[in-house]
Amino acid sequence: MRFAKAHGTGNDFVVLPDPDGEIDLTPDLVIALCDRRRGIGGDGVLRVVRSAKHPDAAHLAADAEWFMDYVNSDGSVAQMCGNGVRAYARYLVTEGLVPSDTVELPIATRSGIVQVEIGPELITVKMVTPEMGEHAVTVVGGLQLVGTSVTVGNPNLVCWVAHPEKLDLTRAPELDPADFPAYANIEFIAPAPPVDDADVHVVMRVFERGAGETLSCGSGTCAVAAVVLRDSDLDGGLVAIDVPGGRLTVRIDETGCYLTGPAVIVATGEVLI
Amino acid sequence: MRFAKAHGTGNDFVVLPDPDGEIDLTPDLVIALCDRRRGIGGDGVLRVVRSAKHPDAAHLAADAEWFMDYVNSDGSVAQMCGNGVRAYARYLVTEGLVPSDTVELPIATRSGIVQVEIGPELITVKMVTPEMGEHAVTVVGGLQLVGTSVTVGNPNLVCWVAHPEKLDLTRAPELDPADFPAYANIEFIAPAPPVDDADVHVVMRVFERGAGETLSCGSGTCAVAAVVLRDSDLDGGLVAIDVPGGRLTVRIDETGCYLTGPAVIVATGEVLI
Repeated sequence: MRFAKAHGTGNDFVVLPDPDGEIDLTPDLVIALCDRRRGIGGDGVLRVVRSAKHPDAAHLAADAEWFMDYVNSDGSVAQMCGNGVRAYARYLVTEGLVPSDTVELPIATRSGIVQVEIGPELITVKMVTPEMGEHAVTVVGGLQLVGTSVTVGNPNLVCWVAHPEKLDLTRAPELDPADFPAYANIEFIAPAPPVDDADVHVVMRVFERGAGETLSCGSGTCAVAAVVLRDSDLDGGLVAIDVPGGRLTVRIDETGCYLTGPAVIVATGEVLI
Repeated sequence: MRFAKAHGTGNDFVVLPDPDGEIDLTPDLVIALCDRRRGIGGDGVLRVVRSAKHPDAAHLAADAEWFMDYVNSDGSVAQMCGNGVRAYARYLVTEGLVPSDTVELPIATRSGIVQVEIGPELITVKMVTPEMGEHAVTVVGGLQLVGTSVTVGNPNLVCWVAHPEKLDLTRAPELDPADFPAYANIEFIAPAPPVDDADVHVVMRVFERGAGETLSCGSGTCAVAAVVLRDSDLDGGLVAIDVPGGRLTVRIDETGCYLTGPAVIVATGEVLI
């Protein structure tokens, strides 16, 4: 079985080329592949399969040739992943599954078709537009923080803090189940010095539900951008966000929300287990 | 650059074939390769190089064709690794660098030549014979435990406990620096039901200095076997030890100490970073 290992700002994936949908991608197989010591290791598996060849995507085949069949490292099926779809697009180009000069590319996901823009280093994906919600409270290591809840397909809570680097995120921050019945991703942000063309620059740490602290979270950065622009009195603009795994930028304008960042193929080879 | 990923009971390695010693294996390269999210991921790198082609092993070339150039994931050079040398031997056989019917094989390491015995599933390596030391105390989550210090090249403290699975090893157990000036690997063991041909069977968890809790520790299991045999009133014998990453067996007799367990090549391929 061929594979690639890829990552986007430290969010990493086992990529399995399977154009004709011939692999029986069982939860046990995914768990074995994602095992970081006895397998390849990854946050999930990205199966590269033609939309026409997968029952979850056949209805999208006319508009998107390739389907990102994304399965989390625990074997559960996932809808979409902003860093995952960027790594997926990089793989399609480097392996010649789409023409090497492809710039605009529609990719089928379980959340429908997402539009990707492919550059030499950076890849942009159009995300769900964040919806601002109410204020809510979280408790982290005895510290009570008020943040803004934001829905980006999934629930998020974005909190400004003085020193994100000092927070203890080895344990799950507390949330009120009345605010977040299914918990949430919690982003902790602080201002950072101006960079590049970005209107605002922040640093961020994130605690992802079900995963703990991670190096990056695509939807989380979109939630952060929405809060940062609001708190900067901007209707839209470009926000640079330094996550532990690198730098992502998010543009929000009247046409939508766009996540941009690096996507790297680390290795290719053959799985022997 | 070609690579393989291999593991022995969950102790995992990036294997780099470099027969003629042409790779400049800098600490930065090792750190990048061992990064579990932005690289291949592993506890260390095993460079596969002819003894004659490496300055640390040229003097051993007459007696061992291959040198295990082992570097820890932090870039520091290592002497020996019981699980690593078993994975290394498996790689030599599967890649045809030694004849496929090889059973006995000397491998050069920075601790000198080690003798390996290669079976279809299990690989045995002759380890340093454990030397029993004094009793010493460790404190784990408020629990004070008395154990036996054992030197297996490196310092170990072996402690019988009622319920190894209940210990909190997310923080380093306390040791008296007067007993262990450079800290130690600490093994926590409990009796387990009889198995196979083993004279004694135990379960073990290990806290490795510099690494925290790990899935397996070759020298640690040798230290455990020495303590278990002494406490069973046996001069020698076979001890089965279930570590979190699988089962290892250790035989101690008048000829030495032998560590046996599985060694698996997970994947082979090409590194692109």
